[in-house]
Amino acid sequence: MSSVMGNNIKLSVFGESHGEAIGCVIDGFPAGVEIDFEKVNAQMQRRAPGKDKASTARRENDEPHILSGVLNGVTTGSPISMVIENTNTLSGDYSDLKAVPRPGHSDYPAYVKYGGNNDIRGGGHFSGRLTAPIVFAGALARQVLEEKGIIIGAHISRIGGVCDENFDKNNVSSELLKQLSVDPFATVSTDIETKMRAVIENARLKSDSVGGVIECAAIGLPAGLGGNMFDTVESRLSAALFGIPAVKGVQFGAGFDFAKMCGSEANDEYEIKNGEVSLLSNNNGGILGGITDGAPLVFSVAVKPTPSVSVPQKSVNLQTMENEVLTVRGRHDPCIVPRAVSVVEAVTAFVLLDIII
Amino acid sequence: MSSVMGNNIKLSVFGESHGEAIGCVIDGFPAGVEIDFEKVNAQMQRRAPGKDKASTARRENDEPHILSGVLNGVTTGSPISMVIENTNTLSGDYSDLKAVPRPGHSDYPAYVKYGGNNDIRGGGHFSGRLTAPIVFAGALARQVLEEKGIIIGAHISRIGGVCDENFDKNNVSSELLKQLSVDPFATVSTDIETKMRAVIENARLKSDSVGGVIECAAIGLPAGLGGNMFDTVESRLSAALFGIPAVKGVQFGAGFDFAKMCGSEANDEYEIKNGEVSLLSNNNGGILGGITDGAPLVFSVAVKPTPSVSVPQKSVNLQTMENEVLTVRGRHDPCIVPRAVSVVEAVTAFVLLDIII
Amino acid sequence: MSSVMGNNIKLSVFGESHGEAIGCVIDGFPAGVEIDFEKVNAQMQRRAPGKDKASTARRENDEPHILSGVLNGVTTGSPISMVIENTNTLSGDYSDLKAVPRPGHSDYPAYVKYGGNNDIRGGGHFSGRLTAPIVFAGALARQVLEEKGIIIGAHISRIGGVCDENFDKNNVSSELLKQLSVDPFATVSTDIETKMRAVIENARLKSDSVGGVIECAAIGLPAGLGGNMFDTVESRLSAALFGIPAVKGVQFGAGFDFAKMCGSEANDEYEIKNGEVSLLSNNNGGILGGITDGAPLVFSVAVKPTPSVSVPQKSVNLQTMENEVLTVRGRHDPCIVPRAVSVVEAVTAFVLLDIII
Amino acid sequence: MSSVMGNNIKLSVFGESHGEAIGCVIDGFPAGVEIDFEKVNAQMQRRAPGKDKASTARRENDEPHILSGVLNGVTTGSPISMVIENTNTLSGDYSDLKAVPRPGHSDYPAYVKYGGNNDIRGGGHFSGRLTAPIVFAGALARQVLEEKGIIIGAHISRIGGVCDENFDKNNVSSELLKQLSVDPFATVSTDIETKMRAVIENARLKSDSVGGVIECAAIGLPAGLGGNMFDTVESRLSAALFGIPAVKGVQFGAGFDFAKMCGSEANDEYEIKNGEVSLLSNNNGGILGGITDGAPLVFSVAVKPTPSVSVPQKSVNLQTMENEVLTVRGRHDPCIVPRAVSVVEAVTAFVLLDIII
Repeated sequence: MSSVMGNNIKLSVFGESHGEAIGCVIDGFPAGVEIDFEKVNAQMQRRAPGKDKASTARRENDEPHILSGVLNGVTTGSPISMVIENTNTLSGDYSDLKAVPRPGHSDYPAYVKYGGNNDIRGGGHFSGRLTAPIVFAGALARQVLEEKGIIIGAHISRIGGVCDENFDKNNVSSELLKQLSVDPFATVSTDIETKMRAVIENARLKSDSVGGVIECAAIGLPAGLGGNMFDTVESRLSAALFGIPAVKGVQFGAGFDFAKMCGSEANDEYEIKNGEVSLLSNNNGGILGGITDGAPLVFSVAVKPTPSVSVPQKSVNLQTMENEVLTVRGRHDPCIVPRAVSVVEAVTAFVLLDIII
Repeated sequence: MSSVMGNNIKLSVFGESHGEAIGCVIDGFPAGVEIDFEKVNAQMQRRAPGKDKASTARRENDEPHILSGVLNGVTTGSPISMVIENTNTLSGDYSDLKAVPRPGHSDYPAYVKYGGNNDIRGGGHFSGRLTAPIVFAGALARQVLEEKGIIIGAHISRIGGVCDENFDKNNVSSELLKQLSVDPFATVSTDIETKMRAVIENARLKSDSVGGVIECAAIGLPAGLGGNMFDTVESRLSAALFGIPAVKGVQFGAGFDFAKMCGSEANDEYEIKNGEVSLLSNNNGGILGGITDGAPLVFSVAVKPTPSVSVPQKSVNLQTMENEVLTVRGRHDPCIVPRAVSVVEAVTAFVLLDIII
Repeated sequence: MSSVMGNNIKLSVFGESHGEAIGCVIDGFPAGVEIDFEKVNAQMQRRAPGKDKASTARRENDEPHILSGVLNGVTTGSPISMVIENTNTLSGDYSDLKAVPRPGHSDYPAYVKYGGNNDIRGGGHFSGRLTAPIVFAGALARQVLEEKGIIIGAHISRIGGVCDENFDKNNVSSELLKQLSVDPFATVSTDIETKMRAVIENARLKSDSVGGVIECAAIGLPAGLGGNMFDTVESRLSAALFGIPAVKGVQFGAGFDFAKMCGSEANDEYEIKNGEVSLLSNNNGGILGGITDGAPLVFSVAVKPTPSVSVPQKSVNLQTMENEVLTVRGRHDPCIVPRAVSVVEAVTAFVLLDIII
Repeated sequence: MSSVMGNNIKLSVFGESHGEAIGCVIDGFPAGVEIDFEKVNAQMQRRAPGKDKASTARRENDEPHILSGVLNGVTTGSPISMVIENTNTLSGDYSDLKAVPRPGHSDYPAYVKYGGNNDIRGGGHFSGRLTAPIVFAGALARQVLEEKGIIIGAHISRIGGVCDENFDKNNVSSELLKQLSVDPFATVSTDIETKMRAVIENARLKSDSVGGVIECAAIGLPAGLGGNMFDTVESRLSAALFGIPAVKGVQFGAGFDFAKMCGSEANDEYEIKNGEVSLLSNNNGGILGGITDGAPLVFSVAVKPTPSVSVPQKSVNLQTMENEVLTVRGRHDPCIVPRAVSVVEAVTAFVLLDIII
């Protein structure tokens, strides 16, 4: 039972969507790192809601307030704790949901698991709002990685039927990743944003929502990283990525497309290039046997459509055990994929730092 | 760096493909369980190679020899240790591969990681042979789960372009799962096996290989299982599943197909059925917020084609740092998907027991 | 590198003595527990400084402010986070200690470990002040244990040369433990407090300090608790107890006195009493083979004298690498043993709940 | 529930005293280490029984047989597995103990914990025999440490009333430690062995047993090692040391003697010596705030007298729930302290390597 992750660095996330505050503790972060708070806040803002019609109308300041572990802007080596106040909470919206679980949300299994004691307002601890502390932790981790030449960036590779396909797994530049990693609507092809936004706006007008896929890459990783068998880069990244609400699939390199391939096309051949071992393709996403092979680390995650849709849905009353029809009200994202890009990058940064340290 | 998995029960896997023996230690397995060794051996045989043309010609007895933790057929509560001797190892096949990594295999990153000290013969510790101890551990776990009414079964849902589509995620019977779980070539549609075998035979004749997808289900799980955020059923299963060699993707329920859906079709609505909460669909694969919702647990894994193909491939010599062309010889599976079904089931059984205990 | 402990419940402690705040996150605490905040505050006050001449003159309110995990006084099942503001910090006292480590404190090894980036003021994260969040966590754990009939209490068994010897390891009543567990100066013999206070006052007048021993007991634990070998009750308690600043020894039952015994006197014999297995003595402190045997759990911890003494001591300047003589100023406990009693009880409560849950 | 220890390197111990074999798996041991098997066997022999009257008459070959992880005498980086056959087991000795627990042994709590399914013969998994795999693991760890200049050695500091007092905590030479670490009866004062042996022989003649204290030191550790709060060198060493059967106390430096000291004598002052920070005394045993301070690491453990004594003792029959008088027969150590020295060193080596790696 754990909102804690990491082996060498531990991230402990706390808070509930409509409680007093959310935050995290980062234990084991290296001492002596000068934090660039502008970069941290840029990532926080990238995730924050309320910026345009593609996201929820709820506005949050999401300003991280550090309580410990940083002295005069430099990490001290002791646990870094951070709190974000919840200021904009309209709890009234949720009062009638206590006994009637919203389809697609954690409401029903959480009710069973916690015996009805969990804070249902806004999804409580299961809310997407809890990704804010994760983005904070990732922003710190990223600064240490960048000093080691490791750059992380992700793009929206699909929303509904629209795909951003011009991402070459074996030819990833640091310029591209740096640009993606500050983009509020990160795509490789510049023309694809308009099409994707149209899909989202269409869902919003129908009071519906839409899912997508995020593809993430990291370059600068040396070959040979990752543990044996159950402690590989794939195992550790996937465990952390499934901790992001709404993620329902994780694949490395060609992933599920491997099923259609034969070995002779799937294998990534080698050549010597500038005196170093190089790969001629990157179907394996930079990972062989769970260990980095020096090619760019590339993986993608499936994000399901926001379950909060304002159409009538069949549900049940857990107290009377009778059928009910539920119409979810409140302010919701018609598509969380654009905001989730920063979260996927943050999780990746944290896990990679934990592996490297 | 860890071939160890589990929180409450710990599985520690050891051995190298062409070393003296492989095996495992299971720490924390409950005391007082009478082991049905016929069932254990049936699972071992299902995974074992050499049964037909679809798998490698290497024959192994794969007989588990128990050293501790079981007295008169009943578990004692102390660690269960098991050893399988490696009897049929033709190491000569691999001697020239020491410096020339096989594309698609772990050879190159393992060489870097272990400074060339790792046992390269047959893939060493990275060999698919190391799944034999996992199947053993899963066979033990499964017996405890079955006493609690939890049944696990998987089928080959795809090989190359051939799909086994008649699997209804929301209507999974224990009869079907029991039948699949002893099937050496597990499919739901009876006519699909011939087509899939044809694809595999076709690859074999070309000295090539082919990938696929395995879909796995578990029924009998109560709602409310799983921890918070990074310790959910999804996180724990995925971390363990990526420990299986050749697995490159994991998705729950609709997985990557969620990207094409809108929320109103993706959500699984509720109704009261026989006085209990029931779901009208199962797009979420029995998991909401990372916690079981009482619907069948359904997920699938992508399996890449065996990298050992006997066609010439570009590689490099890690000692001379010159390009070479490599033709891999030896006995290989043209498709490991059929044998991997038992491994996916075993990992699932072990993780679920670890969660439930 | 971890201020995190626990397997099933995880306690993550954060903060620095003179930073903005200290606090903790408790992850995995059971849902549905109604917290008795009066009891929590009573424990916080028992640990808090400034109550009399035996402790430091620094006064702290030590009021825990809960940010998440508790709704209307009842635990929700999601992480419980708590913050205590640091209000009374006279950092000026410490400014000259940056480069000159105080003997007996963590200053020097912390300087090396953190490259001089750690917050030196008041000992930073190494301060005894960080035991306040531990007492909070223990106070919560204790309430769950008490509902299960498990009672914990500790007494000062020694200060300098004065011992509180009337504690019968095999005959521990819940009345005694309950009384000790609210006592600000917990002793079994009523007359011993005066003598112990005299020893402390004597040290204070000399600007010196004095050490002691705390003996702790828990009753109501069933036989059979604890894991194998490295996960026994002894291993888990000792690892946590050494996390308390100034603890330098842990022994169970007769502990180091076993060295003087022969087996025939050391063994605790059995008899049937009221139809149940009972022990005739308790030299093993309720633990055999690392597992509870049904007798009271009894152990003791050695607490070293507070290193902050106001006599001149030899030290070095870590920047100039020259010898210096240091006189530590500031407000210090001449003896922390009385205040540490509540911390030992808290750690015990947390570990036992973690084992039982 | 875990016979597994370690963070970066994991040791998994298995086996039962009278089962087929005992052994261990070491996961995460570095690749490329050339193992000196003579040194390994020397440590195994030092622990092995049957050498003289001070230990049990049971003779065991204790020859470790390596199954994986070592190729041509060099570690491969994959898990090292090792098996020792149990050849000399006279199980008849224990048949009548099934229902009548031996006082001082784990029999009764193990019976409760495992529901009577545990292997009672020779103490099963709780047997001191299970320290053989620990010594093996420690012997491997020690070789890596020695290459880094870290030397470990321990001596018998007390048996009954006889103490070996000439051990200067602040002046420990590598010569002394090396000599102690191969000594089958390790003492600093040469004349003390005869006196200690007389105490043991006296116990043996009375069919009784005697306890003692082992003091262990490690030199060559840099300052700054160890994690925060619950992950310090003290926490990790103590947790592992309590995993050794019969250990009932652990203290660092002056340990319980700190209770009698005042701060001004307890503190270890600093001086610059040869341009480096040096300590003028070592009451803290080389650890401040849980972190190494550069002085020798010194701690001691209390070992209780072997509970197997051949005098009649009161016990109970767990099946009939009636009182019984038990006389334990079989071959037992009148004092296990001399043999336990190698085990304490081994645990120390393993934990230190796990911290440093």
